[in-house]
Amino acid sequence: MSTLVASAYSDPTMTADPYIKQYLMTAGPTPLPPQVSQVMAEPIAYHRAPAFVEVHARALARLREVFQTSNEVLSFASSGSGAMESAVANLVVPAEPVTVASAGKFGERWLELARSFGGEVAHLDSEWGEAIQPDALDRTIKEMGRPPRAVFVTQSETSTGVVHDVRALTEVAHRHDAVIVVDAISGLGAVDLPQDEWGVDVVISGSQKSLMCPPGLGFASVGERAMALAAETSDGGRYYFDWSRTAKGQAEDPPNSPFTPAVTLWRALDVALGLILEEGLENVFDRHAVLARAARAGIEAMGLERFGPDDYGANVVTAARMPEGIDGAAVPKLMRDRYGVTAAGGQGRLNGRIVRIAHCGYFGAFDIVIALTALEAALADAGADVEPGAAAGAAQRVFSRAGRAPEPVA
Amino acid sequence: MSTLVASAYSDPTMTADPYIKQYLMTAGPTPLPPQVSQVMAEPIAYHRAPAFVEVHARALARLREVFQTSNEVLSFASSGSGAMESAVANLVVPAEPVTVASAGKFGERWLELARSFGGEVAHLDSEWGEAIQPDALDRTIKEMGRPPRAVFVTQSETSTGVVHDVRALTEVAHRHDAVIVVDAISGLGAVDLPQDEWGVDVVISGSQKSLMCPPGLGFASVGERAMALAAETSDGGRYYFDWSRTAKGQAEDPPNSPFTPAVTLWRALDVALGLILEEGLENVFDRHAVLARAARAGIEAMGLERFGPDDYGANVVTAARMPEGIDGAAVPKLMRDRYGVTAAGGQGRLNGRIVRIAHCGYFGAFDIVIALTALEAALADAGADVEPGAAAGAAQRVFSRAGRAPEPVA
Repeated sequence: MSTLVASAYSDPTMTADPYIKQYLMTAGPTPLPPQVSQVMAEPIAYHRAPAFVEVHARALARLREVFQTSNEVLSFASSGSGAMESAVANLVVPAEPVTVASAGKFGERWLELARSFGGEVAHLDSEWGEAIQPDALDRTIKEMGRPPRAVFVTQSETSTGVVHDVRALTEVAHRHDAVIVVDAISGLGAVDLPQDEWGVDVVISGSQKSLMCPPGLGFASVGERAMALAAETSDGGRYYFDWSRTAKGQAEDPPNSPFTPAVTLWRALDVALGLILEEGLENVFDRHAVLARAARAGIEAMGLERFGPDDYGANVVTAARMPEGIDGAAVPKLMRDRYGVTAAGGQGRLNGRIVRIAHCGYFGAFDIVIALTALEAALADAGADVEPGAAAGAAQRVFSRAGRAPEPVA
Repeated sequence: MSTLVASAYSDPTMTADPYIKQYLMTAGPTPLPPQVSQVMAEPIAYHRAPAFVEVHARALARLREVFQTSNEVLSFASSGSGAMESAVANLVVPAEPVTVASAGKFGERWLELARSFGGEVAHLDSEWGEAIQPDALDRTIKEMGRPPRAVFVTQSETSTGVVHDVRALTEVAHRHDAVIVVDAISGLGAVDLPQDEWGVDVVISGSQKSLMCPPGLGFASVGERAMALAAETSDGGRYYFDWSRTAKGQAEDPPNSPFTPAVTLWRALDVALGLILEEGLENVFDRHAVLARAARAGIEAMGLERFGPDDYGANVVTAARMPEGIDGAAVPKLMRDRYGVTAAGGQGRLNGRIVRIAHCGYFGAFDIVIALTALEAALADAGADVEPGAAAGAAQRVFSRAGRAPEPVA
């Protein structure tokens, strides 16, 4: 079948048609379970009515389970970047030192944010596609004149697919008596990050990636020490993202929100978190690991180079380097316009050099087969020498060996 | 019919039942047109895919029509308060003077915000339920040692129902060479506010009130002078809400967003704005005026005192003062628990003293009849002396005189 499909797909006379069946294979927004989509179409609720108050309280409790924490998970009507800003607005003090360790586009957002809030930033700038080494972070901090108030890192760097050793980075930050803030926007709910067990001070996330919801909710799970540090520095410049204001609202019984919550998104979140907990966090992490192994095997079977190491569970997004002589930017465009498969290319300095296949959130085995098959077909269209079905076959062998159907609960 | 209904409703043995048919009569979240709800259940779109890019560009163009401006309407994934914060973060400079004129809970949000960002605030604190007088604003500014950089006011004060004379307040601010920032979160799309014609520097709004969408999108329509003033003061403390960053993204062709947009809410906004423009802004404003007159007539027919003046078109929400000897907080609770009608009570210093009937957004004549009838029944339950049907009759007479069915386009 693969051969037939790939040869039909590779017909150069085939034109782009936006009305063909669509497949969303990006790392945010990610596909939604049908129940999550449908609940947003229900009649809208007043945010202080008992029906919504119950949803809100339950979703907040479920968030604590998914964050693996006893912290109240502070929630904002914002994108994930808004929740990142909350960490910077509450912890960065003008002219006081902080450390940013980055290895991609999203890590650099910490740098931009910390500078916008006037922090004196020491920046460990790792190669995009490599992981930040704990030793290198240790050296960066040692070389700073003054110890940093906070260290900002990224769990899953969505621009390269690299996942960091958050536990080791946390140990380094704590050795220097700094709090650590982890952007886990794409990785939370895909790769294990037991916040309380590892003692991670602040974990940031967003609704639209592994949590299987639309964009529009940002989260900050803030431990006691970070909360105390923020309280020391309440010298203005924050209101909407002020942690203490939101913490005070959420501490009421039932939990309240200082600003009108995005009620349709909370309905969606409640349903999505219910599905994640029904599947079980361990099973969810294992499913992501199997899907990532299949994506990696498929990319290798196509003769492509994987971009980025797969240490620490690079199970969120898999990046493939485009072959020499192929227009890398054309490949995701062909995937989308000819085959209806929306996958992301490279961002920033990786523009036109990689294609990224997402497997975070509501993804199962057949999604990986679709993404790999579309990539194979698009590469063939672009003139690359690929063997139709090689990638799908390699992925199928991974699924067979896993001994389970790596499909999400529905 | 009214008599029968009211006597059945007034049966004191009737118990609360959350499973009865529900009617949302609050001023945010407001009811959504079915098309708006349904579009959020469609498969989610990648924010850089052509299908979403088209929706985003069209919705931004429609926003400009509804704001009656040639400004690019800067948009944020946030509640309306987030968009208010954008104005303060971009215009308020620590220790520099600004003026806040407030006459209710939402006006006081400007005060809290301006102080959080370190501004030296002159505060004109008008009686809740009264309107801010342009002369009083003029005196407040004259008495300041230094002229303010900006004046912050509220168009429709949702906590009291008062709508302000934005045109006159703008003239006062400009006389003192200050820019004016208007919170039009509840009033935009209900009460005429021709931004460019009146020269209003900054108009703030949100998705979840008269714009007939769920909460989660905040808007700032920023004129040239305010934009230039913001550019002078780019000394940190803002990133997510930085106007220049969002303006730069939206100025691209096609418009872009610096952070992942809340794609389901944009789909909803596009549909909702389409309905508003199909009805026509003039017709929308006129419908709100008729509904407000009917609400006021109904409240007077019940023998209640209206709270707040109705100058300048108090057409967003109508507040009724609870009679002496009646537990004011019990009335909206009875409306909700016995009759399934969710209306808001008083906030802050008006807690327990008023009931507010909303008529902003997707509201028509029968919604007003429902709200008035439920209020009448709840008042009877609470022991007040009311004449069943008096309010509905008074509202019907207003509709008859209006010579049109004041119903929204569907």
